[in-house]
Amino acid sequence: MAASAHLIVTLSCPDRPGIVAAVSGAVCAIGCNIIQSQQFGDPETGLFFMRIELDAPGGESAVREALDPAVREFSLDLRIADQGRPARTIIMVSKEGHCLADLLYRRDTHGLGIDPVAVVGNHPDLAPLAQFYSVPFLNIPVTVDTKDHAEQQLLDLVRSENVELVVLARYMQILSDRVCEELKGSVINIHHSFLPSFKGARPYAQAHKRGVKLIGATAHYVTPDLDEGPIIEQDVTRVSHADSTREMVALGQDVERRVLAQAVRWHTEHRVLLNGDRTVVFR
Amino acid sequence: MAASAHLIVTLSCPDRPGIVAAVSGAVCAIGCNIIQSQQFGDPETGLFFMRIELDAPGGESAVREALDPAVREFSLDLRIADQGRPARTIIMVSKEGHCLADLLYRRDTHGLGIDPVAVVGNHPDLAPLAQFYSVPFLNIPVTVDTKDHAEQQLLDLVRSENVELVVLARYMQILSDRVCEELKGSVINIHHSFLPSFKGARPYAQAHKRGVKLIGATAHYVTPDLDEGPIIEQDVTRVSHADSTREMVALGQDVERRVLAQAVRWHTEHRVLLNGDRTVVFR
Amino acid sequence: MAASAHLIVTLSCPDRPGIVAAVSGAVCAIGCNIIQSQQFGDPETGLFFMRIELDAPGGESAVREALDPAVREFSLDLRIADQGRPARTIIMVSKEGHCLADLLYRRDTHGLGIDPVAVVGNHPDLAPLAQFYSVPFLNIPVTVDTKDHAEQQLLDLVRSENVELVVLARYMQILSDRVCEELKGSVINIHHSFLPSFKGARPYAQAHKRGVKLIGATAHYVTPDLDEGPIIEQDVTRVSHADSTREMVALGQDVERRVLAQAVRWHTEHRVLLNGDRTVVFR
Amino acid sequence: MAASAHLIVTLSCPDRPGIVAAVSGAVCAIGCNIIQSQQFGDPETGLFFMRIELDAPGGESAVREALDPAVREFSLDLRIADQGRPARTIIMVSKEGHCLADLLYRRDTHGLGIDPVAVVGNHPDLAPLAQFYSVPFLNIPVTVDTKDHAEQQLLDLVRSENVELVVLARYMQILSDRVCEELKGSVINIHHSFLPSFKGARPYAQAHKRGVKLIGATAHYVTPDLDEGPIIEQDVTRVSHADSTREMVALGQDVERRVLAQAVRWHTEHRVLLNGDRTVVFR
Repeated sequence: MAASAHLIVTLSCPDRPGIVAAVSGAVCAIGCNIIQSQQFGDPETGLFFMRIELDAPGGESAVREALDPAVREFSLDLRIADQGRPARTIIMVSKEGHCLADLLYRRDTHGLGIDPVAVVGNHPDLAPLAQFYSVPFLNIPVTVDTKDHAEQQLLDLVRSENVELVVLARYMQILSDRVCEELKGSVINIHHSFLPSFKGARPYAQAHKRGVKLIGATAHYVTPDLDEGPIIEQDVTRVSHADSTREMVALGQDVERRVLAQAVRWHTEHRVLLNGDRTVVFR
Repeated sequence: MAASAHLIVTLSCPDRPGIVAAVSGAVCAIGCNIIQSQQFGDPETGLFFMRIELDAPGGESAVREALDPAVREFSLDLRIADQGRPARTIIMVSKEGHCLADLLYRRDTHGLGIDPVAVVGNHPDLAPLAQFYSVPFLNIPVTVDTKDHAEQQLLDLVRSENVELVVLARYMQILSDRVCEELKGSVINIHHSFLPSFKGARPYAQAHKRGVKLIGATAHYVTPDLDEGPIIEQDVTRVSHADSTREMVALGQDVERRVLAQAVRWHTEHRVLLNGDRTVVFR
Repeated sequence: MAASAHLIVTLSCPDRPGIVAAVSGAVCAIGCNIIQSQQFGDPETGLFFMRIELDAPGGESAVREALDPAVREFSLDLRIADQGRPARTIIMVSKEGHCLADLLYRRDTHGLGIDPVAVVGNHPDLAPLAQFYSVPFLNIPVTVDTKDHAEQQLLDLVRSENVELVVLARYMQILSDRVCEELKGSVINIHHSFLPSFKGARPYAQAHKRGVKLIGATAHYVTPDLDEGPIIEQDVTRVSHADSTREMVALGQDVERRVLAQAVRWHTEHRVLLNGDRTVVFR
Repeated sequence: MAASAHLIVTLSCPDRPGIVAAVSGAVCAIGCNIIQSQQFGDPETGLFFMRIELDAPGGESAVREALDPAVREFSLDLRIADQGRPARTIIMVSKEGHCLADLLYRRDTHGLGIDPVAVVGNHPDLAPLAQFYSVPFLNIPVTVDTKDHAEQQLLDLVRSENVELVVLARYMQILSDRVCEELKGSVINIHHSFLPSFKGARPYAQAHKRGVKLIGATAHYVTPDLDEGPIIEQDVTRVSHADSTREMVALGQDVERRVLAQAVRWHTEHRVLLNGDRTVVFR
């Protein structure tokens, strides 16, 4: 018999009466205890979203079996995760280490639920930082000629290591549509700007030139449509006329790492559900 | 037969397995549709909290009847409110009108769910503002000699008008323990400071003297223990060495009215549940 | 002899050594006391900006005379204002009153330095609000046919009443290039979005559709290039997936009125200096 | 002849007419160019504060000589610092590394102006982190018996290494009055709470118990009166009923390191001037 487990059940489906009752009734019938639960019905898309934390005496398979009738009746898109298990993660970087350092520090200190299989850099600069945190570092340079090959290496690694999450921690390369599609919903990017705003290169120089009084960052799922993926989290910080572009970069990096870490935490706690081009975040 | 209703059900009880299933199953069985729902189990107090928005074809009485077995089995503290109905409210003021003006403006413009039965002032200064918004103004002066009588007038008004909510919108009088007890959980105060901090008179002068870089405000339920009631909402704003006490008052009033309006909105939407000395806020 | 005055001197000029010494020396020589002063040299534009609060025993004319050599030597763009005198102001509105109510409330209560000559509305809806605060209300409807005439009325009013500041407090009309040019640097608009972002109509609906987690507002000087004028102040507030477009409007209006009031306050305190397409804000 | 230097001049003195003119005139007379300058006169304490960034062709000694008459006339408390030179700094730690990691990262990446002479820990846990950033680590354990000796080691190190700044980066020991007095104005502490509030041990547990909706951190200069030193910077972050004490610690540490880094940056840029129990921060 399976051991008791602490599980997180997430689901989405077309909204109609009876879903909560069916789901909670089914898990209750096999002796589960619901610790926390949230629901949201989107009146615009007509979709329903639910997240449940529960203690399951019979483990994941028992829950899956108990929910099977509801899955068929309500066309549930159902996911069940073990709360205790961190997500097998690849962190992709270029030369800037602020986001990487922050993620690894939080993994060690605050139980951020990532199990970093590897740090992949298109430059070798951040190898020492990865090593300090005892995470393997892979240098996969990317040029126009090697891009296809480099992406294949990434996809192979994702498959061979059962990677569940890829974090673009200031990775300055654009993933091809093929990779975006294949890893849809499991690649998180931090955009060094406040979307939709200042698209393209050197956003802080653009922000400085425009004379803005706030700068921000956006964490989002990656889609083939660059910078248009579903937003997970955003935040801003105040700047003034006296801040140079260089100072705005430093302030911006603070926001970037904070926003990215928050998004990764919510993702690994299965709090983020896709709702078309948007997200539902059960905080 | 009762007309269909859009209801908000809130409940709290000792936490144990089966509550969500019992409640959602019961309302599902009578044809209700759950629009939105949130639960929270507090591991420290062992209490469970739930808020459900639902469409009820049979109206409130049908829901109450359907939930009766669960009420008895789980000792539910159950409340059912009609989402369309604003709370019958008394707003109490002294001389400063920023919070009053804000609440009445939001009632008119943003559908803040209060039905202001009266504005009660211990000074007459804000009568014109109340009249501009077509709300009756009652001047009930308070002195050491008249305090008992004044409070009795308030309690009489609460009873005769079926008042559900009393908002202390910068009312500079302390309610007696008797009133606090009798209206427990239905009196919201805005504290002109960031609790716990700077208790007592002239908080902005205290804050200025201390050289703080942030000032804040706290909305809380009123209890006999002054300034120690369950906190509903807090916020802050930045100040600098160049801000005089007078400027800090102006900045502080901005925070006060924003925090109070937020707390009143959440209360009238039945999002705030008491958890001992604290609150659960289902945002 | 002129009475002593409390003045605010602001100036900008090409940056080079000696400006501060020349200016402070000149006002010192006629017995002025500098209360507060700030300078900023922009290394990019090569411009220098300065703001001085001073007590001037000889009044404004003595200060102007004393600074005349420096004006010629350094090509100062010099302005001198009496700190005690509020700016003669026209507030332009359409149907939404949250910004108007806020500005008038702050004028009465917090000494916001505006002297509202008139509220001008292209709709009559806000006449009662203006009247409550004893400010004349002018209804100047605007149609394609009457636009030129309506703008002429505005310009005539600005001239005949010596108006120094025009505040577009959610005025839903676009001013012609002619008006923008003529009133350059003295028209403040509140943009119902976080610039540069979501230009055009229904920004909150756009923001909702995009699934943003923050919404904001921008106060800026009006230029012929719509929504591209120099930014004075910006702020944001947090929203979630559960907020409808309607709720985002309410939250957004909170930010709008706060940001507009802040920008107007800084403008009337002569803290905002134009630096090309940007502003210097001496807070 | 001395080489040209980029200097920061800060001064405070009793406020009276003529200070700005005397100071700017004196540095102008020796060919200095004022890049940026700020003044503030505190009407309550009657003190005047000034910060000037200038290019000095004759170097620091020429500036000091030129200002000597003003020093004597106005009783200036004058300090002159070379903008290019980082502050010789000791960072003191216990077991928690979030603030240390952040300070060293910013030194490397964002030019935070500290030259870390040593990391001093009363526990050895953070030695690897210091070594990763190539900073010497000194383990000086502190017990009731060794406290005097440990503090003497610290003071000896401060003297022998010409240390200008001591940062208590979550150093869980209280410095004796003797050390506080001797290093007055050059020891910065991060207080794991929002002062004045929740003094004493386990502030996040206290905050959780009180049910606050915001938690914060305060960076301040250390004085013998524990937790009452002049505040340099404060900030807050939002928490909810669902955040456990453990989650509040993680959120709180984010605020702590951000606030501490900001305070250290301002201090090393000579933007913070003492004004009795408060600070003037020229941002």
